[in-house]
Amino acid sequence: MNAEVIATGSELFSDTLNTNGIYISGKLLSLGINVVRQTVVGDSPKEMESAIKEALSRSNIIIITGGLGPTFDDITCEIVCKVLGKKLVFSREALSSIAAYFAALNKQMNKINEKQAYIAEGAVPILNSAGTAPGQIIKSDDKLVVLLPGPHRELRIMFEKDVFPFLKKKYERGIVKIKIFHTTGVPESVINEKIKDIVTLEKKLEEGSLKFSILAHVTGVDIKMVVSGTNEMLMDKTLRNIAFEIRGLLKEDIYSEDGKSMEKVICELLVKAHKNLAVAESCTGGLLAHKITNVTGSSAVFLGGMVTYSDFMKKTILGVKEETITNFKAVSRETAGEMAECVRKIMASDFGLSTTGVAGPGKSSDGIPAGTAYIALARDSGTIIKELKFAGSRAEIKAKIVQAALDMLRRELM
Amino acid sequence: MNAEVIATGSELFSDTLNTNGIYISGKLLSLGINVVRQTVVGDSPKEMESAIKEALSRSNIIIITGGLGPTFDDITCEIVCKVLGKKLVFSREALSSIAAYFAALNKQMNKINEKQAYIAEGAVPILNSAGTAPGQIIKSDDKLVVLLPGPHRELRIMFEKDVFPFLKKKYERGIVKIKIFHTTGVPESVINEKIKDIVTLEKKLEEGSLKFSILAHVTGVDIKMVVSGTNEMLMDKTLRNIAFEIRGLLKEDIYSEDGKSMEKVICELLVKAHKNLAVAESCTGGLLAHKITNVTGSSAVFLGGMVTYSDFMKKTILGVKEETITNFKAVSRETAGEMAECVRKIMASDFGLSTTGVAGPGKSSDGIPAGTAYIALARDSGTIIKELKFAGSRAEIKAKIVQAALDMLRRELM
Repeated sequence: MNAEVIATGSELFSDTLNTNGIYISGKLLSLGINVVRQTVVGDSPKEMESAIKEALSRSNIIIITGGLGPTFDDITCEIVCKVLGKKLVFSREALSSIAAYFAALNKQMNKINEKQAYIAEGAVPILNSAGTAPGQIIKSDDKLVVLLPGPHRELRIMFEKDVFPFLKKKYERGIVKIKIFHTTGVPESVINEKIKDIVTLEKKLEEGSLKFSILAHVTGVDIKMVVSGTNEMLMDKTLRNIAFEIRGLLKEDIYSEDGKSMEKVICELLVKAHKNLAVAESCTGGLLAHKITNVTGSSAVFLGGMVTYSDFMKKTILGVKEETITNFKAVSRETAGEMAECVRKIMASDFGLSTTGVAGPGKSSDGIPAGTAYIALARDSGTIIKELKFAGSRAEIKAKIVQAALDMLRRELM
Repeated sequence: MNAEVIATGSELFSDTLNTNGIYISGKLLSLGINVVRQTVVGDSPKEMESAIKEALSRSNIIIITGGLGPTFDDITCEIVCKVLGKKLVFSREALSSIAAYFAALNKQMNKINEKQAYIAEGAVPILNSAGTAPGQIIKSDDKLVVLLPGPHRELRIMFEKDVFPFLKKKYERGIVKIKIFHTTGVPESVINEKIKDIVTLEKKLEEGSLKFSILAHVTGVDIKMVVSGTNEMLMDKTLRNIAFEIRGLLKEDIYSEDGKSMEKVICELLVKAHKNLAVAESCTGGLLAHKITNVTGSSAVFLGGMVTYSDFMKKTILGVKEETITNFKAVSRETAGEMAECVRKIMASDFGLSTTGVAGPGKSSDGIPAGTAYIALARDSGTIIKELKFAGSRAEIKAKIVQAALDMLRRELM
């Protein structure tokens, strides 16, 4: 059972990342469907037509995104009908859905949107609650062609609600289980070395198969295991055993599993410990607080933060001592420590977490190279401070320092 | 002259966005080369082979990324050689480049990396200063096949330095000029209405052609114009005239042009006005400060920020009056105004900018719906306050509020 995704729209060549493609193919893979290709074509009828024909020659399931809008350059449905030899027919159901969308916004439906109520003969419309373009599920011989609108949010809602359950029921090939371990602060090569004996298990199992991948990101390394097969009990056992081994090997280097963010882990650990947090940032300039406040409900454990972007502000706002900055400079072990202690005192928090460093590009005015940073954690039992050295762009360095600071707190809370 | 990009690697189906594809196709388009397709295939020799064969049947320039590493599953070069009927040969130059990379890191080169010194017969190696995998430029009859490594940073350095100049010299088809206007706070439909008379000019010009697109993002709408042709003087004139008209129609709704970020505009305007800024954030939780500090050199105009994530902190840290919060609540016009005034006073800044609202998901504890927010700007001549209502995810709402707050300051500085 081969599947592929075709994304249409010339903007995908230079302005918009194909997030629909990776989202849909990831979902298909999770059903054990073999994804063979992702294709992007522009708004060219000729290219669109040949891409669809080629896909039909290779695959049973073809999911096409984009080009379902009301204007003249939205031609996906017409081209699909042409290739499949189907007529375009009016769908009362599709029209009601479009009308309902406008009604909910208290707006008049435009005449031009009526075009969107025409779908392929025999197709099942997929209603769109977040936009005007209905999707379609089209069956043609042994092939399935699904059309979905381009805007990612609309597509995602429609895929979750209608397309995924439909595909799951009809095409799920055995069972696929995915397990991801997230690590930070440990190089890819070290992770690889530590788990290589387990990875050599990557062979046909008694039941199903197991595949490892090591994925390096700016802020850490992920280990991904995909187990597929048909005997769920046996697969679960395999997965549990290997997960147990990996946890044993990497221990607290694993900060979370299965997509949970570092900041979510931090918030959960703080809730569990009945502790709260305040932060003081210099080089990370608000990113540390931003990350934490991305977590829904973070206000239960996060009191607030100070961004002190000059030596003067470090002194006046946080109360870092004049002589600390004079003797040791703003980017120093000593300043980091005092920043964490001061913010903890000002906000009367259980933990004070701080960052000071050089985000770059280029060295600081006192010659400290970009990527040098100090992070500190102040708590009842004293203050711990760590020196960091990172490479990368300004944005990458900010992200790496924040991840390291959060990880420092996580290890304290474990 | 058709071109296409093939990205290889199964991780592109579920874990890694194809940033290489959009980067390369954007660069090709800027040379007037017609990009017809982007393809993603997994680490399957069969799929890779058929994707390359298909591409050769359609296009003259094929750029293939990924699969040039040293391990057994890196097979791009072998497959390309097979399809083109070329032998793999040892390249002394490639080997020196790999050896130099290890030497720079003070590390021993691994035996396994020698594999990477084998390239297609007659190919020109592209040296890699940021990793081990050399690229290749392969000529075969009237076709050009370029191989580049998968890691985006390595690829980008190599593309800029070697591939782009090569392609420019050999394939540049006339001249392409791109102009982008960035707006925020104005709906796509309003932008469309305002500029539609100009857009109808989108027809063959006397010299070359003109294409408009309207690109909607979470934090604003972009207008992109692409002019292509051969008579640079005439094209420049056309572009200047249309840009002049668009600026006249949209006026200060355009916050910047050609990729400059809102926060960079703010920093430049502050520098020009010899003014500085302090921020006080509630619902945006540090994102406002983070955005501003993403700008290199922002420390010249940005003093710092306070993230007050509870009513108590708003009172104790910022000094918002008890009765303001009791009478009007934390999410109110009044609290936003006092937050901006307090932070301006504390940091003795020219401007104080604040945000308070409900980032969601779900309403606040006192029943205010997600997406409701107030932003305020305190300055010498008094405080201005604005109410906002946004839809979207927690992350989107934070981003929209920050963009609106920055835009409020921008309009003040103009």
